[in-house]
Amino acid sequence: MKKANKKLNAAIVIIGNEVLSGRTQDVNVINISNWLNSLGVKLDEVRIIPDIERTIIKTINEVRRKFTYIFTTGGIGPTHDDITSKSISKAFKVKYCYHPEAFQILENYYEKGKFNTGRKKMAKIPKNASLIYNPSSAAPGFFIKNVYCLPGVPSILKSMLGGLNNKIIGGKKIISKTLSLRTVESEISIPLEKVQNKNKNIEIGSYPFFKQGKLGVSLVLRSNKLNLIEKSIKEIMVFVKKKKIKIIINK
Amino acid sequence: MKKANKKLNAAIVIIGNEVLSGRTQDVNVINISNWLNSLGVKLDEVRIIPDIERTIIKTINEVRRKFTYIFTTGGIGPTHDDITSKSISKAFKVKYCYHPEAFQILENYYEKGKFNTGRKKMAKIPKNASLIYNPSSAAPGFFIKNVYCLPGVPSILKSMLGGLNNKIIGGKKIISKTLSLRTVESEISIPLEKVQNKNKNIEIGSYPFFKQGKLGVSLVLRSNKLNLIEKSIKEIMVFVKKKKIKIIINK
Repeated sequence: MKKANKKLNAAIVIIGNEVLSGRTQDVNVINISNWLNSLGVKLDEVRIIPDIERTIIKTINEVRRKFTYIFTTGGIGPTHDDITSKSISKAFKVKYCYHPEAFQILENYYEKGKFNTGRKKMAKIPKNASLIYNPSSAAPGFFIKNVYCLPGVPSILKSMLGGLNNKIIGGKKIISKTLSLRTVESEISIPLEKVQNKNKNIEIGSYPFFKQGKLGVSLVLRSNKLNLIEKSIKEIMVFVKKKKIKIIINK
Repeated sequence: MKKANKKLNAAIVIIGNEVLSGRTQDVNVINISNWLNSLGVKLDEVRIIPDIERTIIKTINEVRRKFTYIFTTGGIGPTHDDITSKSISKAFKVKYCYHPEAFQILENYYEKGKFNTGRKKMAKIPKNASLIYNPSSAAPGFFIKNVYCLPGVPSILKSMLGGLNNKIIGGKKIISKTLSLRTVESEISIPLEKVQNKNKNIEIGSYPFFKQGKLGVSLVLRSNKLNLIEKSIKEIMVFVKKKKIKIIINK
């Protein structure tokens, strides 16, 4: 993986009526996000949009100018509602056509006589886009400029991310530390805010939880600089000790 | 629930670094979406954005003009990273101040002497916003014009939706029928596309699945008119029979 100095961020565009309709629980966001963390790229926005061509074009053209990397999920299969490849071609104003290598991969994958029109559609991508190989089920994804198009099926998507590691110029790995306390948020909100205000360069999140009949709060500190996280944890420990709050997890 | 004739749609704005960072799996979208289906309101977009004031303001001001209803989740608790109420006030250019009833509810909820500054913050909402009652943990949500602000904790959010039924002017209930077939998408993509093209007013989604070692495809037909769905199913049945495809589910 190459490394960049400038701030790197990403957005995910989930193209799928099935997620909007409440039929399907998305799990691709959490998988892509954790993979991006390991590459030092921060996920800054997610959009879930319907399978409507003009919405896809408008959304892609908006986000691709705003974020370093865009990942789309869904809509690259063989049916009429799979319109991602065609819509991305239109967004970039390039031809939507057969990619010779994709065609070859699919032709080799299917038995003789089984490579029908529906399956051939999966070899059509924007002109000059590059392939993202699919070790699970042959049909490749693709990328054009900073837009990476992946399938919607989570297991297949996950299997394709590894092959992208060398394509993404990453930054410093984002480190996350969690401090779970036996307390409630409103007991610590004032001193915690002071710590956050003194340490603007790290992200401190506060998340209440209820586990095994007991209330608690997880503080999550995120930054690409470990020393900044450690400094903030030290400052948090001052009021934790003073208030005699029990520490459940510190890792 | 009142009913409207015009097209009703909604967007969800998830305000939460914890979802973007990959720490937390969102489940609020699926819950809100299914509730909206029962009210006849179509979810047309979801955005997941970070806990950054200017991003919240910009996003809310964009989506509230585009969709009938906006639902936000997260950021209405007592800690420094809970900035939804303040940001929504700024988006609407109204004062961010104590709501007398919210203050009263929280004061009654906490033991004497325990209603501290952090907890009082949860009574601050945009001026003239109305409360959304919280039967789980007292702290209310609120709505201002078409923007409804709910908490991020899924169980609490769910318990608050019922109280909103009478506040939302709904449409005709969206009906969804599923036809699961023992086939693969590329076997049916061509005739299925013809059915969709002949029936533009219903949404036909095609979703491949792999269950108990066997491949299949679920066709999901959605519309608020049952007769249109039934007509399309009849047309689909023609090629299903012709191709001798086994029907697994038809409901």
